[in-house]
Amino acid sequence: MATEEIKELPKSWAMVGGDGPQSYTQNSSYQKGVVDASKEKVTEGIKDKLDFKSLGFDSSNDTFRIADFGCSVGPNTFFVVENIIEAVGQKYHAQFQKSPPLELEFQVFFNDVTTNDFNTLFKTFHSNRKYFATGLPGTFYGRLLPKSTLHFAYSSYCLQWLSKVPNEVVDSKSPAWNKGSIQCDGLKKEVTKAYSAQFQSDMNTFLNARAQEIVGGGLMVIIMAGLPNGIFMSQAGVGMYYDLLGSCLVDMAKLGEISEEKLDSFNLPLYYSSSTEIEEIIKVNGNFSIEIMDSLSHQIWQTSKKSNIDIFVSGGRAVFQGLVEEHFGSEVVEKTFEHFAKKLVDNFSIFDGAAHEHIDHFILLKRHFN
Amino acid sequence: MATEEIKELPKSWAMVGGDGPQSYTQNSSYQKGVVDASKEKVTEGIKDKLDFKSLGFDSSNDTFRIADFGCSVGPNTFFVVENIIEAVGQKYHAQFQKSPPLELEFQVFFNDVTTNDFNTLFKTFHSNRKYFATGLPGTFYGRLLPKSTLHFAYSSYCLQWLSKVPNEVVDSKSPAWNKGSIQCDGLKKEVTKAYSAQFQSDMNTFLNARAQEIVGGGLMVIIMAGLPNGIFMSQAGVGMYYDLLGSCLVDMAKLGEISEEKLDSFNLPLYYSSSTEIEEIIKVNGNFSIEIMDSLSHQIWQTSKKSNIDIFVSGGRAVFQGLVEEHFGSEVVEKTFEHFAKKLVDNFSIFDGAAHEHIDHFILLKRHFN
Repeated sequence: MATEEIKELPKSWAMVGGDGPQSYTQNSSYQKGVVDASKEKVTEGIKDKLDFKSLGFDSSNDTFRIADFGCSVGPNTFFVVENIIEAVGQKYHAQFQKSPPLELEFQVFFNDVTTNDFNTLFKTFHSNRKYFATGLPGTFYGRLLPKSTLHFAYSSYCLQWLSKVPNEVVDSKSPAWNKGSIQCDGLKKEVTKAYSAQFQSDMNTFLNARAQEIVGGGLMVIIMAGLPNGIFMSQAGVGMYYDLLGSCLVDMAKLGEISEEKLDSFNLPLYYSSSTEIEEIIKVNGNFSIEIMDSLSHQIWQTSKKSNIDIFVSGGRAVFQGLVEEHFGSEVVEKTFEHFAKKLVDNFSIFDGAAHEHIDHFILLKRHFN
Repeated sequence: MATEEIKELPKSWAMVGGDGPQSYTQNSSYQKGVVDASKEKVTEGIKDKLDFKSLGFDSSNDTFRIADFGCSVGPNTFFVVENIIEAVGQKYHAQFQKSPPLELEFQVFFNDVTTNDFNTLFKTFHSNRKYFATGLPGTFYGRLLPKSTLHFAYSSYCLQWLSKVPNEVVDSKSPAWNKGSIQCDGLKKEVTKAYSAQFQSDMNTFLNARAQEIVGGGLMVIIMAGLPNGIFMSQAGVGMYYDLLGSCLVDMAKLGEISEEKLDSFNLPLYYSSSTEIEEIIKVNGNFSIEIMDSLSHQIWQTSKKSNIDIFVSGGRAVFQGLVEEHFGSEVVEKTFEHFAKKLVDNFSIFDGAAHEHIDHFILLKRHFN
């Protein structure tokens, strides 16, 4: 293993740890909605696309290895893993006509950045779990597991996170300088190009690392936030949401609570891609076949808009607190999210006027046999 | 995997986490001495006893899996693992006459109880490490890994820790009630019998779990605190050390700082076994052959006695704080270790009068082929 493959992401990429009122554990119901919406698709995908015989399994003892890349601190990852194990067990049973007790043993690798709160994750493991559990710290934009040892990879709501903000968009000398916005809103061609290039590079790095780890015939489910083809972030509700966060920061700069310079150098390391873009990247990468490419329909964004502003407020903080804290300092975190909460309440109706909504891509890949 | 195999140990079994002045990380130089003393033995053991061909490796790609059972929060575990990897790499090279770069990939499982501070462990991983690292939370008195997937198991300074204090020794109605002592001092036959039975049961559980995980021909190094054959704890310096901790608690009970009842129900979950006892347990268990059984000579206990009382004070706290806190409450922790520090300073000369010293067993086992 080449040592240069190991790198770390900034601490701020981790969700808020612990299990307190501001933790990701307590504020990930949006992501839970994504998990629920994808559950049946995962089950169906395993039923139709997983072939134990081509994976080299026979009906004797064997270990089936699963990894959740970007699992955060739970509890969503546990629902996901239990669902995968159930579906894989059923397929195994169907292929080998064996009655339970199955001889198959499951080993699950829970991955997230090194600064993720693994202590909380481990404390909330179910004591009656039917798998051997391990924590796998480190960025998934690099190798994490030995060659050809993984049978099923899963990554939900992570790959829209870039490994870094593209340098150009926070460089005042670059034509891609994104002054006045904290995201890739789609309004400036050079900015979009820089974000898109970073996304392409990161996805390719991810696919290459996984291609080494996953056995031929092994499956990978990727769920990630994206946009319908041809739609910009500024046209979608979620883009307006990030713009509101940006406008809080502008207000704070005007009040002298944060510096103008800090504001200008702050951009979200997020890129919402279209299915066309992703398809192209996977094809050029060449290690996987696209078995399913679809989008999830889930109602939680729409429902939240109407009934539960808390998800917008607390959910955003659980995800973005680390970034704000690292860039602007811990002393302004509280104020920023107070501003943001107020701004959300005051402007909640704008979401109803959004011309478009983002989508969640559901992609099932199969590793080519070499 | 039978779900009843998963159990948890009390939180108090974990060493003090973090990296502050009272942490295990900062106060494990005694254990580091043990690591240093065993380094050469581990290297020699791998050279002489590891056979890649009988393990089923060929000269093509393969993964060599190592686990450190009871790794705590580092840094000792990193030295251990790096040494093992170096020795295994050399043996692989010798057996297959391959020049580097070796195709062998290493996967390392860092195990400790679920309440161990894995966050600190992960943050201190070396970024240039030459292995894939995972955290393996859970008690090693149970299965932790899939069947026949481990090539090298290691456990240093953990197996003298029992899974629990034997019930009888804290039961006022039992002939094995250990009133007046907090340890198995060897002075009361019934107490020794109860401790010894618990040790036998725990060791057997440990060996059975590892026997399922380790491949035929795989090796296991066990280093554990013990006593020379025929010697009691009360005759050894370390026994006097625990007795001093006990006498602090007696003083505190007299002063009304802790209750008499709490004192009587407190015993250390520690058992220092003889090599004869261990040999018998391994033979009866039947899954492993004893390849090397030896004791380590290291000078740190003797040196510490003379020059460095701090190791006795801080090292003890890093290890025993959890137990004191859980049993007597967090409010008396500070006072207990203040008393203990004073008592150690006042009575330091008694260690020079100790008739015997404990020993550190070094055992290298090989898993039988089924």
